[in-house]
Amino acid sequence: MSDAGERIVLDAMGGDNAPTATVAGAVEALRGHGVRAILVGDQDRLEAELRTLGAAEEGLRIEHASEVVGMDEVPTVGIRQKQDSSIRVAANLVRAGQAEALISMGNSGATMAAGVLVVGRAPGVDRPPLAGLLPGKGAGTLLLDIGANTDCVPQNLLQFGIMGSLFMEVMHRVKRPRVALLNVGAEEIKGNQLSLAAHALLRESDVNFAGNVEGVDLFTGDVDVVVCDGFTGNVAIKVMEGTGDLAFGLLRSAATSSNRGRLGGMMLRPALGEIRASFDYAEWGGAPLLGVNGLVFIGHGRSHPGAVERAIVQVDAALSRNLPALLEKGLA
Amino acid sequence: MSDAGERIVLDAMGGDNAPTATVAGAVEALRGHGVRAILVGDQDRLEAELRTLGAAEEGLRIEHASEVVGMDEVPTVGIRQKQDSSIRVAANLVRAGQAEALISMGNSGATMAAGVLVVGRAPGVDRPPLAGLLPGKGAGTLLLDIGANTDCVPQNLLQFGIMGSLFMEVMHRVKRPRVALLNVGAEEIKGNQLSLAAHALLRESDVNFAGNVEGVDLFTGDVDVVVCDGFTGNVAIKVMEGTGDLAFGLLRSAATSSNRGRLGGMMLRPALGEIRASFDYAEWGGAPLLGVNGLVFIGHGRSHPGAVERAIVQVDAALSRNLPALLEKGLA
Repeated sequence: MSDAGERIVLDAMGGDNAPTATVAGAVEALRGHGVRAILVGDQDRLEAELRTLGAAEEGLRIEHASEVVGMDEVPTVGIRQKQDSSIRVAANLVRAGQAEALISMGNSGATMAAGVLVVGRAPGVDRPPLAGLLPGKGAGTLLLDIGANTDCVPQNLLQFGIMGSLFMEVMHRVKRPRVALLNVGAEEIKGNQLSLAAHALLRESDVNFAGNVEGVDLFTGDVDVVVCDGFTGNVAIKVMEGTGDLAFGLLRSAATSSNRGRLGGMMLRPALGEIRASFDYAEWGGAPLLGVNGLVFIGHGRSHPGAVERAIVQVDAALSRNLPALLEKGLA
Repeated sequence: MSDAGERIVLDAMGGDNAPTATVAGAVEALRGHGVRAILVGDQDRLEAELRTLGAAEEGLRIEHASEVVGMDEVPTVGIRQKQDSSIRVAANLVRAGQAEALISMGNSGATMAAGVLVVGRAPGVDRPPLAGLLPGKGAGTLLLDIGANTDCVPQNLLQFGIMGSLFMEVMHRVKRPRVALLNVGAEEIKGNQLSLAAHALLRESDVNFAGNVEGVDLFTGDVDVVVCDGFTGNVAIKVMEGTGDLAFGLLRSAATSSNRGRLGGMMLRPALGEIRASFDYAEWGGAPLLGVNGLVFIGHGRSHPGAVERAIVQVDAALSRNLPALLEKGLA
């Protein structure tokens, strides 16, 4: 449970289901966990949503913003030209020190741009990475960068390793996290120019470097953190999502194509739903953009109220554990 | 069914299960499909395998090779230093015109090196790509490069598109295949330096360019060919494999953790086995290295006899359809 004051701003207009899902998630975070987020967006619409939920009297703070950066708008243009957009106003609040963290389920490029250009990079951070916790054994494996920086230099990947390691220590209580490099083979001589150079940097660094891993090793739980450039990482999580869609689509066909299949599908349905959810990025709550002045959490555009609620509660926990300050210290 | 003469050489010593699985696969290809492959490897061991299978009298040609490049050896070193290795001797036969195609389930790096350095690149081809047919709707989607060239320039990706398009036309009867670029977003402005430049080249080319696709779109069957650099492609197929492992592992747990689950698992078992196999690269037979002087097929190290047999039959079909000559013509 958080302190009484608000320290999290929610871009209440961001996402496919906004503002209905965002406001409902914020109300749930308050009612279920006592965590208050500031709602940023069209005041009339947000008040109407609160009334619908019978939450008009709960005192959730609204900051008005008259514009929205759409899901398909060019991120940097949206952030620069729409000065009164919900994501820009939310980022301004963090920049001004009125809040410590920002959450958006909206245009993810615009949220990253708001994080880097408005909230600002933390001292010593060259390129803030987006970090996604993959399903798997134990606490799971943190993959970063999953999409913030499509072109990287080796030094970026070293910083991703340091930040990822601290994240897993602070947020998931992993002791001395094992950090690996995503590559095309386990051997040191494997890779492209970037991964070969990054391997050398990581090996000589203070991170607990476990060497190279391949795509097939991301879900085994053998390592805690895997670093790569944001292009490769984005392809990786989306291939995971696509493979899940395909596997469960085939399974659904199998479970409807015969009586035997239908019976089997009925028996396994509860378990299947749970497994399916673990591959669905929209269920994860949010992916943190690490290394900005504060915390920026980026949710899936399809987020429903439960995912918004989880994002708020997770971010609150990260603030309570001083994640931003610890990251800054670790990179100093 | 092929002509009477042998035109395919099989590196009979390559792979985790060689020479037992390779010889058995070659015998099956002959008995079931009338396709003869030349077996390259230790003569005594190969003859012993043939005797075990009761196939000593079938007249499969053996070319002796005294050495083997191990699965973990540095590929180019293995190819250069082990002049009498099975993969090198097999490649020499293709180079000398005694055969038209080479198949190996051994060290994939060494097979690629043998393809590029010994068999040689076809005229006009800068970097031969490894092409993998992904499971999905219809004929499936051909992804290339899945690991031959970890660093690429935009022109390479254009050539991959041309070769992939011809492959799907010739081998899978796809008319005017739709070729897409693997990227981090559908919009033209998305990507890293390589994909942005490759997008521009593909758009102005003669291939039927469908624009960018993301990792999640690889299995929908919406496009027939997807191009990317060999680092990204290798990560993509291995994430697919890892996701499949994880999903079916979780399913197995669900189907053993309760009576209800056990019953459901039993009902669905036949379907599950089939679905599982479609994610297993070891089941695919082989991935062609396109753009060499002839054909080089690279199988999974874990290939069993059925996968070896399929590889031989597929390569035979490709030769019967003149794939190498058509690729060369298409790139001229």
